[in-house]
Parts: sequence; structure tokens; C-alpha cells
Amino acid sequence: MTQASNELIFRETVQKIRPVDPHLLEQAVERQRHLTKPEGSLGRLEEVANRCFAIFGGGPFSVSKARIVTFAGDHGVCAEGINPFPQAVTAQMVLNFLHGGAAINCLARTCGIELKIVDVGVIGPLPPSPELISRSVAHGTMNFCDGPAMTQEETYAALRVGIDMANDAVADGCMLLGFGEMGIGNTTPASAIASALTGRPVREVVGRGTGADDGCLRRKISAIERGLALHSEHLKDPLDILTNVGGLEIAAMCGFCLGASASRRPVLTDGLIATSAAALAVQMQPAVKDYLFAAHASTEPGHAPLFELIGHQPLLNLGLRLGEGTGVALAMKVVQAAVSALNEMATFESAEVSAKDTDNPR
Amino acid sequence: MTQASNELIFRETVQKIRPVDPHLLEQAVERQRHLTKPEGSLGRLEEVANRCFAIFGGGPFSVSKARIVTFAGDHGVCAEGINPFPQAVTAQMVLNFLHGGAAINCLARTCGIELKIVDVGVIGPLPPSPELISRSVAHGTMNFCDGPAMTQEETYAALRVGIDMANDAVADGCMLLGFGEMGIGNTTPASAIASALTGRPVREVVGRGTGADDGCLRRKISAIERGLALHSEHLKDPLDILTNVGGLEIAAMCGFCLGASASRRPVLTDGLIATSAAALAVQMQPAVKDYLFAAHASTEPGHAPLFELIGHQPLLNLGLRLGEGTGVALAMKVVQAAVSALNEMATFESAEVSAKDTDNPR
Repeated sequence: MTQASNELIFRETVQKIRPVDPHLLEQAVERQRHLTKPEGSLGRLEEVANRCFAIFGGGPFSVSKARIVTFAGDHGVCAEGINPFPQAVTAQMVLNFLHGGAAINCLARTCGIELKIVDVGVIGPLPPSPELISRSVAHGTMNFCDGPAMTQEETYAALRVGIDMANDAVADGCMLLGFGEMGIGNTTPASAIASALTGRPVREVVGRGTGADDGCLRRKISAIERGLALHSEHLKDPLDILTNVGGLEIAAMCGFCLGASASRRPVLTDGLIATSAAALAVQMQPAVKDYLFAAHASTEPGHAPLFELIGHQPLLNLGLRLGEGTGVALAMKVVQAAVSALNEMATFESAEVSAKDTDNPR
Repeated sequence: MTQASNELIFRETVQKIRPVDPHLLEQAVERQRHLTKPEGSLGRLEEVANRCFAIFGGGPFSVSKARIVTFAGDHGVCAEGINPFPQAVTAQMVLNFLHGGAAINCLARTCGIELKIVDVGVIGPLPPSPELISRSVAHGTMNFCDGPAMTQEETYAALRVGIDMANDAVADGCMLLGFGEMGIGNTTPASAIASALTGRPVREVVGRGTGADDGCLRRKISAIERGLALHSEHLKDPLDILTNVGGLEIAAMCGFCLGASASRRPVLTDGLIATSAAALAVQMQPAVKDYLFAAHASTEPGHAPLFELIGHQPLLNLGLRLGEGTGVALAMKVVQAAVSALNEMATFESAEVSAKDTDNPR
């Protein structure tokens, strides 16, 4: 696959994304009104189900077949001492995913959701496994304090991996998509993206990630500030941000988000890192918003400003700060429940339940 | 069943409830420390799983078999014009439950949770159905503005229904229990209970329930204020509160909570009405707290003060205001996911994942 073809597929995917028809949203609201419950009493479940109804074009639909794709990649910026875990943990955790022993495996199993693991840029070595989707673009990014994290060619290649994964999921009949990540050090590029996109000072959007101590946090802030200063002339455009201070798994998640939207599938974003990718996708094509759902609020301070950018508030707030797609697994169940209520509930008419009495009983 | 035997079973159940061993909680925290994730990164899921571990005594356990019991009853205080829906809707909705067309049916199905429907005091008539557990204590309560909502005999009988339902669930092998309700007008007794238990003014704990307009809300506040004034000498004790301003399904949920705790099962409370029952159970026996989980924050203003009383904050905040056990169905999935992570995740040792590097990489 040459750069030209990856870039072309990226541009075609972005162009294919169409906003959801607002009339369909109104139809869904009207349908809710007839269901055997007080108006609005399912709260955010109604809002979620209505948007799914509109995404699927107003006909019969199901979201029972759901898939999470977890993208793994390594980060050159780890050389700055920004993370308390050794970088080898990325590959070790990928193996853990493949053996079913990580949190995301347990949560996806419990929630009845398919899980796919994609190597888009782990330093490795990773032994071949039938469970692993090997789409490595590079063995980790470069240190963005010294130069761009990726080449433009790598950025397009990683975006393409995500687009392909979305297309594969759709081809496999998945109706509800979500994404997560694994990459030691990747709250650092995600926070850099959050700062670049929102214009907020680095200190406001940086957190302790997986558990940085004070020294680690100081180095993290310094690395991001130096990286953003170094690339300050090339952070105007989401593609440039991705290339200069992003990451391979972040680019892949961004592509996944675009691919899911182009195929008209509801798509759930996870924690800070996933949401930085979603925010870049929304910058590339604002209509992505119509397909995007925010699964959960992580404890990272950079998450909230990203929610503003993507125009969605998280469904859950359970103090998670793990990534992997763990918040998505839990939130997908909420989406499925919301849709089942819209699709399967009886109406006041069909169940012969009296509607609200507008002339009060006394 | 005579009053004496119902009262006896109630007292025996309360006495059987034992606090959870705090050492087991520490053991669970220690176990979490070895799992392949940064410490604390599963947030509230860890807290939930740790408590389940302690509830089940620290041995192997599963919460995959889960049941929600939804109790239905009618309310004499509806004569005060406190609800916009006609009272016949209680029975109509019970039929809707039995036919699988209500929100709780859809959510329980989606989440793989058993659902049982109990008539503990619907005015009726309800045709016999193999799906309906008929344990009617009375055809609705009396109007608490005119006298006690129930006789003491009815209170004990309804508590007994709940205890029996918890025991049945345990006998059927259910490891995770939850409860919900249906009863037109029952935010009124629930708000009365919230005010009586917390000492807060009625206006602070009353909301619009299923959608009261201004006149309805005024009548609701007035009815509760008159009821609490009428019974002011007999609201010192949770049993008296239940009898004077409670309800049959509220008493049954209170009994269910006690029964679940006595049998050492985690038990989830739902919206305002369910939580008013849970708060009464906690007043009767503070160790109930150790078994209780708050599923979700409803939009009713009386819910938050009840969370303080039961000592738990809700897992979800999705703007639900429907009852039926709908919040419980969603939260049970969170509990199951939390437990699966604790029980099934690999450890750093078993997965050969490097732990946090205390000597930082630089």
C-alpha cells in the first residue's frame, strides 16, 4: 500500500460521512412518546436510542452485535521518562489481551461484546498469534521532543489501519462499534493533542495517567511543552497535530472513528487517549459527531475539554483510568439497553395502558 | 400466616444480618494490587468488586445469576390528586410486565437478568398468570392523609412478602439481587419517608415523579405535609413510618433488602421509591449497608438525601425517573463486570507483565 492509496482512502472516507437526518431524530422522539412510560423517563437512554434510530435511517435495526477494537502502539516520547511503567509493558499487555487476562477481556466477555486486538505500532517483538491482527506501521513513534512523532506516510498508513478495521467490523455484521487502546506513555501525546486542539495550557490538560509520581508528572508536562513549542508552526490542522505529536494507535483510532461514521454505525469512544483521536476525527469531519458516543469520564483532566470538542457528554462516570476500551464495554450495554427499550417496548395503545390524564383526577 | 409469625420472621431476619468482615475487604484490595492494571485504575469497579468479594466470604464466587424482583402496589393517597396518571395504570403496567412490553422487561432481557413480578397490593383486578407472583396483602393502601396507610398487620405481611422473595431467589441460586417497583402515586409515600427519615422539609425532597404539573405538585406537597403532621407522634421508628406513610410495595422492598442481607447477597436499590425502602431497612439494621449498592441517581430531589442515609453513592447517573428496577438492570451489568475483572484477570506474575517501575527509567 503506497502513501497515495492510503491518503486517497482517507480522503474518500472523510467525504463519505454524511450528517444524520434531523427529521429522523424527531421521528424517534415521537416514537418514544407512545411507549409505556412517562415522557422522558428513560433520560439519557432515550437520547442515545433516538440517535441510533436516526443513524440507522429510521428502519428496523439492532445493535446486539457489537465489537470493540483495541489498538496498540508504542511512543518514542517515553525516552523523556514520562511514564512509571517500562515500555516493554505495551507488548506484554498485548499478549495478556491475546490470552484473555486483561480487564478489557473480562469486561467484554461479561457484556457479550466481541474484542479485536490490533498491533499498529508496538516495539515488539510480538510472537505471531491467530488472535492478533498484525498491521504494524512502525515499531513505535519517534520522540516528539526531537522531531515529528511520525512521518506523514506513517500517519496515513495508521489512519488506514483504523478505516480497514471499521470496514471489517461492518463486513462482519457488527452494528455497534467502539475503540480503545494500549500504549505505555500514550496519555502524553493525548494530552499534547488536547492542548493543541483546545488551546488550553498543558498543565490544565495533563494528569497522572497510569500513576505518575511528581517527578514523572513534571517530566511529562515539560516534554509536552517542548514538543508543542518545537512543532508550533505545524499544529494548525488535525493531520499535522497527529503527525507531529500523535501516535500510531491514536491515528488508527481516528481512522476507525471516520470509517465507522462513513458506514453509518454508532461508535463509542473510551478514555482520554481514545477521545483525543475522536476529537481529531471530528475536526477532520464535523459530521462524525452524529455517530459518536462518549462512553465514560476518565479521571484525566484533559478528558472534559475533549468532550466539549466532540459535543458529547460521557454516559458513565465510574472513575476509570485504564483505557483498553473498558469504559466502552460498559457503555455499550447502556446503548443496547436503550435501543431495546425503543425497539421492543409496548405502546400505550398496544398494551392498553391509560396515558397521562391531562384533566387531573380531581 | 398470622401477624405473629410474620413479625417473628421479620425479627429473625433482622437479627440474622451480620456486618461484612473488614479484613476480607483488605484481602480484596490486596488481590486487586496484583492484577494487570495500574493500581486503582478500575475506579468504582474495584470498590464494587471488593465489597462483593467480602460479602461472599472471600472464597470463589460468581454473580452471573442475577434477579430483579419488581413489587407492585397501589396507594390510597392518590385520592388527593397527587399523580397525573389514573390509578388503573398500576394494574395495566403489571399486565404489561407480564407480557414483556415494559422498559424493565427490555432492559432485563438485554442485560441477561431474571425478572419476577410480585403483586403485593394492586387494586386490581389482575387476571391469574403463571408469570405473576400473587402475594396481595391488601387492595392498595389507605389514604395517609386520613389515617395510617396500612395496619401494622399489613406492614408485617408485606415485609414478609419481600423476605420470602429474597429467600426464593437465593434458593433458586441467584447470587446478585435487585429490586424495583410499580405503583401509581408512590413517589408521594417515598417522599414522605425521605422527609420523615432525614428531617428535611417536604418541599426539599419532593419532585415531579412521573411528570406532575404545578397543581399536581402543589397537591402532592400538601398531602405529604398533612400526612406527616397527622402522624407526627408515630414517625420515630422505621416500622411506624412504613405503616403510617409507606406502602405495601415499599414494605415488601424493605423486606427484600433485609432478606438479601440476611442471606449475604449483594442487593441493588433502584430509584427514589426503592431507595426509601432501602433506607428504612438500613434504619432497622445498619449492617444492611454492607450488602447494599445504589444503582443510579434518579432526577427526584429526595434521592440524594436517601443516598446519604444508606451510605452509598449511585453507580450510574443517566437521568432515569421510571422505577420498575430499570436502573438496577443497568447497574447489575457494572457489578458483574467489576466482579469478572477481580475474579478473572491475570496477575502481573501470571501474565509476565512488568509492574510499575519504582526506579524511574531516567
